[in-house]
Amino acid sequence: MVKNSLGRIIPESFNGKKLIPYKDPYSLMPKGKRAEKSLKRVGPGHKKLLKSLKDAILAAGLKDGMTISTHHHLRNGDYLLNMIIKEIDELGIRGIKIASSSIHPVHAALIPYIEKGVIAGFECGVNGPIGELVSKGELKCPVTVRTHGGRARSVIEGDVEIDVAFIAAPTCDEYGNINGYFGPSACGSLGYAHTDAMYAKTVIAVTDNLVEYPVSPISIPQTLIDYVVTVDKLGDPEKIVSTTTRITKDPVGLIIAKYAAEVIEASGLLKNGFSFQTGSGGISLAVAENVKNKMIEKKIKGSFGCGGITGYFVEMLEAGLFNVLFDVQCFDLKAVQSIGKNMNHIEISADMYANPFNCGAVVNKLDAVILGATEVDVNFNVNVNTESNGYLLHNTGGHSDTAAGAKLAIIVAPSIRGRLPIIRDEVTTITTPGETVDVIVTERGIAVNDKHEDLKKELIKRKLPVKDISELQKEIYAITGRPKPLDFEDEVVALIEYRDGSIIDVVRKVKE
Amino acid sequence: MVKNSLGRIIPESFNGKKLIPYKDPYSLMPKGKRAEKSLKRVGPGHKKLLKSLKDAILAAGLKDGMTISTHHHLRNGDYLLNMIIKEIDELGIRGIKIASSSIHPVHAALIPYIEKGVIAGFECGVNGPIGELVSKGELKCPVTVRTHGGRARSVIEGDVEIDVAFIAAPTCDEYGNINGYFGPSACGSLGYAHTDAMYAKTVIAVTDNLVEYPVSPISIPQTLIDYVVTVDKLGDPEKIVSTTTRITKDPVGLIIAKYAAEVIEASGLLKNGFSFQTGSGGISLAVAENVKNKMIEKKIKGSFGCGGITGYFVEMLEAGLFNVLFDVQCFDLKAVQSIGKNMNHIEISADMYANPFNCGAVVNKLDAVILGATEVDVNFNVNVNTESNGYLLHNTGGHSDTAAGAKLAIIVAPSIRGRLPIIRDEVTTITTPGETVDVIVTERGIAVNDKHEDLKKELIKRKLPVKDISELQKEIYAITGRPKPLDFEDEVVALIEYRDGSIIDVVRKVKE
Repeated sequence: MVKNSLGRIIPESFNGKKLIPYKDPYSLMPKGKRAEKSLKRVGPGHKKLLKSLKDAILAAGLKDGMTISTHHHLRNGDYLLNMIIKEIDELGIRGIKIASSSIHPVHAALIPYIEKGVIAGFECGVNGPIGELVSKGELKCPVTVRTHGGRARSVIEGDVEIDVAFIAAPTCDEYGNINGYFGPSACGSLGYAHTDAMYAKTVIAVTDNLVEYPVSPISIPQTLIDYVVTVDKLGDPEKIVSTTTRITKDPVGLIIAKYAAEVIEASGLLKNGFSFQTGSGGISLAVAENVKNKMIEKKIKGSFGCGGITGYFVEMLEAGLFNVLFDVQCFDLKAVQSIGKNMNHIEISADMYANPFNCGAVVNKLDAVILGATEVDVNFNVNVNTESNGYLLHNTGGHSDTAAGAKLAIIVAPSIRGRLPIIRDEVTTITTPGETVDVIVTERGIAVNDKHEDLKKELIKRKLPVKDISELQKEIYAITGRPKPLDFEDEVVALIEYRDGSIIDVVRKVKE
Repeated sequence: MVKNSLGRIIPESFNGKKLIPYKDPYSLMPKGKRAEKSLKRVGPGHKKLLKSLKDAILAAGLKDGMTISTHHHLRNGDYLLNMIIKEIDELGIRGIKIASSSIHPVHAALIPYIEKGVIAGFECGVNGPIGELVSKGELKCPVTVRTHGGRARSVIEGDVEIDVAFIAAPTCDEYGNINGYFGPSACGSLGYAHTDAMYAKTVIAVTDNLVEYPVSPISIPQTLIDYVVTVDKLGDPEKIVSTTTRITKDPVGLIIAKYAAEVIEASGLLKNGFSFQTGSGGISLAVAENVKNKMIEKKIKGSFGCGGITGYFVEMLEAGLFNVLFDVQCFDLKAVQSIGKNMNHIEISADMYANPFNCGAVVNKLDAVILGATEVDVNFNVNVNTESNGYLLHNTGGHSDTAAGAKLAIIVAPSIRGRLPIIRDEVTTITTPGETVDVIVTERGIAVNDKHEDLKKELIKRKLPVKDISELQKEIYAITGRPKPLDFEDEVVALIEYRDGSIIDVVRKVKE
């Protein structure tokens, strides 16, 4: 065990891999080369279309202990991963590692296959029941949580070697050209799948919408696809949208959003060329609404909107408030419709979005990002992975990536959630280091990271409720009381990998 | 010296590299992995914009003996390569190898630098004076001629390692996002540059049109660009168009075009889903005109047009005769205008266009391609590299790639050119193997490769002037006389590399 720079105790290795303890957000340099991939030759007349998912798994030569991947653009509407694992089980293959871009509650169907030994681990974060059971120690299944940029990095570095990538392809031709824009399972951007297509040893396009050659536009080209296979249905795009992708009506949320927008304004970043990302949560969208109104009022023409894209950002693009949307993932169907027809709504890979180890990701060019939190601490460290009960319930997404890249990373959260205080002495799990977090906005006050003295002064000048973070914490504790510390066992059940591959924290088994 | 399968005498090595003699078009399998590239890290705040081309060369660490590349989308209007070499010379760097996608007559300005030792060789084919002087032995400068697909392969395989790629970027932002669609030097597709950006050790974007971040659409992304530098002018897009990119008015050419279109019709390929490529020569365009009229008449909706794209193909796209254009290179300004605004006019890399060593290039899906020739022989081998005086004057382009990929590769050429017969016992230089050439169309008759007995019968049924190739040759010789054999010295001055990396022929010094 070693202590990383944030004081978290990290094992020296996990699941057979030696670990690098987190040091700081920017200094770890890549040492290696891009991952290898064997060259192939496919001549004229060759057919890629196979009869079934099972045939494709066999053709790919999937064997015990190998690693597979899927993308999560259909989010909780994804049918594919469950189908694949069922086939793998039927073929008697065991010990498969899953390196998908994310796992959602719909994948609770995988639990029996974890118990059965078909699945041996997750090289990705998990949303929902699997993480909970892993935290409770009820499932033995090592999990490595990665950021979106960190996942791309891990694949490109060869840290995670994907043997077989299965790409849910909402529109696909028999030679493997793919886009996510059209078809019954249209999900828009396929940003997370680009790296898989580029680096996996074998790449299988799975579609429920096989169209005449060639697909147009092309998000992932034929040159990277080994096999094509059809299934009845890839998923349910209606379930891409989570219930939170609407502007909040909660008065607390609306106050937070108003403050956050005023922080952006006070920062001086809200001028021509402004670039912006929000999540799809109700408060985030309310911030966007406030920012939008300020932009219209001041006739500001922004540069780009980025991230998981909502219809809200599409409206801002169409209103001329942004020149470009950079879209790694569509968060709703309005975004899906836009990306297929608007040349300035640009699909980007997770590599381009957020990988720290390339010639510069889009997050580096962000002015402001609005992010959520399950907890923050007095050092501005943020937790989005575990809830305050200690259960691993959420994947990181682009949280740490955008915080590291943006000039102004603002955390928005109600000061009290489920009777628990948002600001802690120490967060249960560090997802995003405080060094990359600039402002925490609650309805009860705004805490500014010490490195932004000027911003703090400006906010005070504007009569915004700036508070020292410890003072704000005390105020909240006065209502909620000091939360009881959680009891964990020593056993590490999951790693929280920082975007550069170092380990920023671990998740330990919760003591029942 | 060894003899390859076409009887050409090939040295065992050239310019220090061991050679693989050509065997056949399809059987050579890739053995290796994709070329390595070191990972980099560029954090927020990093600036890529340098003050001058010289600063960029210094920043890239260019040293004696290294390899550089440029793309040739500005064709004979390119200013960049000459500028770069001038700077390299001024920095005292010597022995540079040039691995550009092609060299044009405008680059005759490089000749003094070859003589001076600044340039030590060409890892690419050359159009014009440099090739002529090399053939005459007046310039000592080894040349390796590659096809468009073969060049992409050579870079991806690591056979050619580009140390510094200079990418002429008609539209570019300070973080290195690039497209070729807009700006004073707009050239449209940047298809040849994609592989360079992906694999060169250092990549420099050179622009005369620096725009606000971010460029949209993006052809080559920021993640691959190390430095950005501005120059006054990248080139003259008016010179993209060669004088031949108009439909021929020559009656001989018109007869050939009519025959070629009838061959396509007779082949049965001209039906819904038809895919097609022509060059930009006057006869090729006349074939396209004939094919277009047949498509309209028969209400045929084609699948895709491919290749170097002309305004002629843009009109066919806009008329609904193709669903998609796959564009590796714009051959005229109408194509340049189209690619920036039409979502179905798709920029493709040379890798996707024609690389034999990937999961399937676009050429594999071509129904018919119309190609030129300086000579053909009775075994259907085609020469496009040397003229009948033995001088290396032309690059291969996509000739061998499309011939290998297309179901029907048709050579169109007048039977006599400059008093010389087009059909020889043996071509001076084999560019494209006869095994991949299906039909030769001259105004004096149509020769069909023996492997297409059915097509031959169908053409005869349609009363087209089908002739045995030897018979056709005899008929032409009766007019021109048998051409005098050329005298060559033993010295090999250039390699003709087949698309798979094997050596299909060499160019020897012409005896004066």
